[in-house]
Amino acid sequence: MKKACVLSIGDELLQGLTINTNSSWIGKKLNNYNVHLEKIITIEDKLELVKYEITESLKKFDLIFITGGLGPTLDDITLGALSSCLNKDLKFDPVYYDELKNKFKIRKMKFSDSNRSQAMVIDGAKIIPNKIGTARGIHIEKNSKHLFALPGVPIEMKMMFKNYILDKFLIEEINTSLAIIRTTGITETILYDRISDFIDKFSDRYTFSFLPSFKGVDFKIRQDDKCQLGLKSVSHSFYNWLSPYAYGWEGDTLESVLANQLLQRKITLSIAESCSGGLISKRLTDVAGSSSFFLGSIVAYSNEIKINQLGVSKKTLEQEGAVSEAIAKEMVISIQKLTNSDIAISTTGISGPSGGTKSKPVGLVYIALFYKNNITVKEFNFSSTRAKHREITSQAALNMARRAISD
Amino acid sequence: MKKACVLSIGDELLQGLTINTNSSWIGKKLNNYNVHLEKIITIEDKLELVKYEITESLKKFDLIFITGGLGPTLDDITLGALSSCLNKDLKFDPVYYDELKNKFKIRKMKFSDSNRSQAMVIDGAKIIPNKIGTARGIHIEKNSKHLFALPGVPIEMKMMFKNYILDKFLIEEINTSLAIIRTTGITETILYDRISDFIDKFSDRYTFSFLPSFKGVDFKIRQDDKCQLGLKSVSHSFYNWLSPYAYGWEGDTLESVLANQLLQRKITLSIAESCSGGLISKRLTDVAGSSSFFLGSIVAYSNEIKINQLGVSKKTLEQEGAVSEAIAKEMVISIQKLTNSDIAISTTGISGPSGGTKSKPVGLVYIALFYKNNITVKEFNFSSTRAKHREITSQAALNMARRAISD
Repeated sequence: MKKACVLSIGDELLQGLTINTNSSWIGKKLNNYNVHLEKIITIEDKLELVKYEITESLKKFDLIFITGGLGPTLDDITLGALSSCLNKDLKFDPVYYDELKNKFKIRKMKFSDSNRSQAMVIDGAKIIPNKIGTARGIHIEKNSKHLFALPGVPIEMKMMFKNYILDKFLIEEINTSLAIIRTTGITETILYDRISDFIDKFSDRYTFSFLPSFKGVDFKIRQDDKCQLGLKSVSHSFYNWLSPYAYGWEGDTLESVLANQLLQRKITLSIAESCSGGLISKRLTDVAGSSSFFLGSIVAYSNEIKINQLGVSKKTLEQEGAVSEAIAKEMVISIQKLTNSDIAISTTGISGPSGGTKSKPVGLVYIALFYKNNITVKEFNFSSTRAKHREITSQAALNMARRAISD
Repeated sequence: MKKACVLSIGDELLQGLTINTNSSWIGKKLNNYNVHLEKIITIEDKLELVKYEITESLKKFDLIFITGGLGPTLDDITLGALSSCLNKDLKFDPVYYDELKNKFKIRKMKFSDSNRSQAMVIDGAKIIPNKIGTARGIHIEKNSKHLFALPGVPIEMKMMFKNYILDKFLIEEINTSLAIIRTTGITETILYDRISDFIDKFSDRYTFSFLPSFKGVDFKIRQDDKCQLGLKSVSHSFYNWLSPYAYGWEGDTLESVLANQLLQRKITLSIAESCSGGLISKRLTDVAGSSSFFLGSIVAYSNEIKINQLGVSKKTLEQEGAVSEAIAKEMVISIQKLTNSDIAISTTGISGPSGGTKSKPVGLVYIALFYKNNITVKEFNFSSTRAKHREITSQAALNMARRAISD
């Protein structure tokens, strides 16, 4: 197994203005391949410090990933540091210089001479293209060790890392490939019980692991020898065995998967939210294009709005209380009628920290679903913090809609 | 200025299962004092690696902050590493051992012998109390260098860091204090122009800085010599000079400040959201206790809901379009009437990426406010990504409500 380190460069990371999400993203990705990330070093953009860390890292690691310090300003010292540590000249690339000038012209941005530094390359290095920004990455091999320098802007770094390092370098070099199946609404233990026989059956050719979080469990399948049976067909078999809990693949979110289902089947949706307070609507409208399926919602936090806007019965409220199966049901029937949506969701619960009683404790929540003239109400108890209670409630509600449509 | 480093220990940080928010939080805090954080090192919980990094850090830094590795399991090797590097014995603390046993008893958790390790202390070290968890922190001084070991659980680490290191050690040792004023709705440049005379006047005794983000600008006042004129009165003067843009102090959020205003004045609020899609409701209901002032909202994403639920005029929609001053106004009037709230907000805009036209580009948004029979509509153009457009819109809307109530 190859040993790796990440060297993150930038004052903003040390001053706490930016959280170093790049390095943990890289750690997560490498974790999926046959690469062991042993150390993350975060330092300021000072030439001497960067040179020292590059030199030290070359002694200990097979793969070194540098992020940041590739911009056009004086702070951007990664190329200079690499050139000095590796004893390689910096060369001017006139072709990229013209390309760069053109990029600025198209974006109507002023091209300054300081941008010239972004057209410099290290002698003998391979270029890692950057489709979004102006800073190109570089890949240098020295004594079977590989150094990669990538920009610090997360969207650029991630795209370049994925296209060049994961999909190209690691696949070719380390000969491994991977699939991640996302599941929700089931615990790691039950998930394991469902598929343990299949895991045993395939364990000589694949490595399996579970990554649980409070929103669901990701199931990872790694294939270390590409010559064997295709990962694609195996991962699709596991997807079926994990149904109906599997909702997507790496990169998917539950809201994006549901949004796609709704768009493809031309199904409209509306929501009546109480305890989730707008969060389900917020998650669905995070998806670009959501106006094609999302009609709207009523966030009925007070009883008055439940009565006056949703037409929930005052009597039911008094008899059953706002957090009850009956109210969840009335809410979902009402929002569907009001908006004439194809599918409707409602939530009512106690997110806390206060508001709980002995018979209705903090954490209790009812989620109702209307679809094809059927109404389902489910009772859950997600005992957690207020913020997590709301997140899990929204996850469960979106998942109920997804499963109803899939059936 | 003292030089510092953070040593974060934990496999989960390198595997990308946990983002290292601890170290950037520490960076942000130290940035406020006279301490310069020069390096963050993230490594696995292997004894030899931790010992190596402690030894190296002692050569270069005045203050060393270690997070993680203080739990009761075999992976938790921070104390062992420190004991070995500093040549100090580990001693058993029978008083804390009894306390620990008692803690487990109260929580009805099983006490196992492996917990005994959490009752060990390094000879000569000061104890940093942990009010939440079971792992105590330690503070060791060696040759004028200070080592602090804290648990990795963020909530425990932050509380201990604040109480012991910021409010005690750094204040006493480095003699500095600080105030942060949070502002929104104004750029850094205009903010500076408004107060530049005052900044000049006080600059011999205070250090000032601006921390801009897309949601607002934080203004920082640092006092390095506590014997001088009180920071409290100076920071309150700046707060007044920064009015009406200043909305709170460090730790406040715009939604928590608005929530407090509403609670104190017993004002109820309702919202009609179009482009913000539930985000404003979500932010307000993030605040515990929001059910006392937040009645609810209608997320009117489709025109049908705008017409049928909000009673917006079909004619206005056709003539002016959904994204218009007239519609924002009708939306806010309607939601106020429907809910009989004291204050009401509405939003309608184009968050993108699609949906823009030449006369109504992506980024355009109208925010309307109803309060005390006055209706105000403001037009903005927040050109940004979809996610940021929605965040900035919600910020501007909450701020309009805050300012209306404050006036």
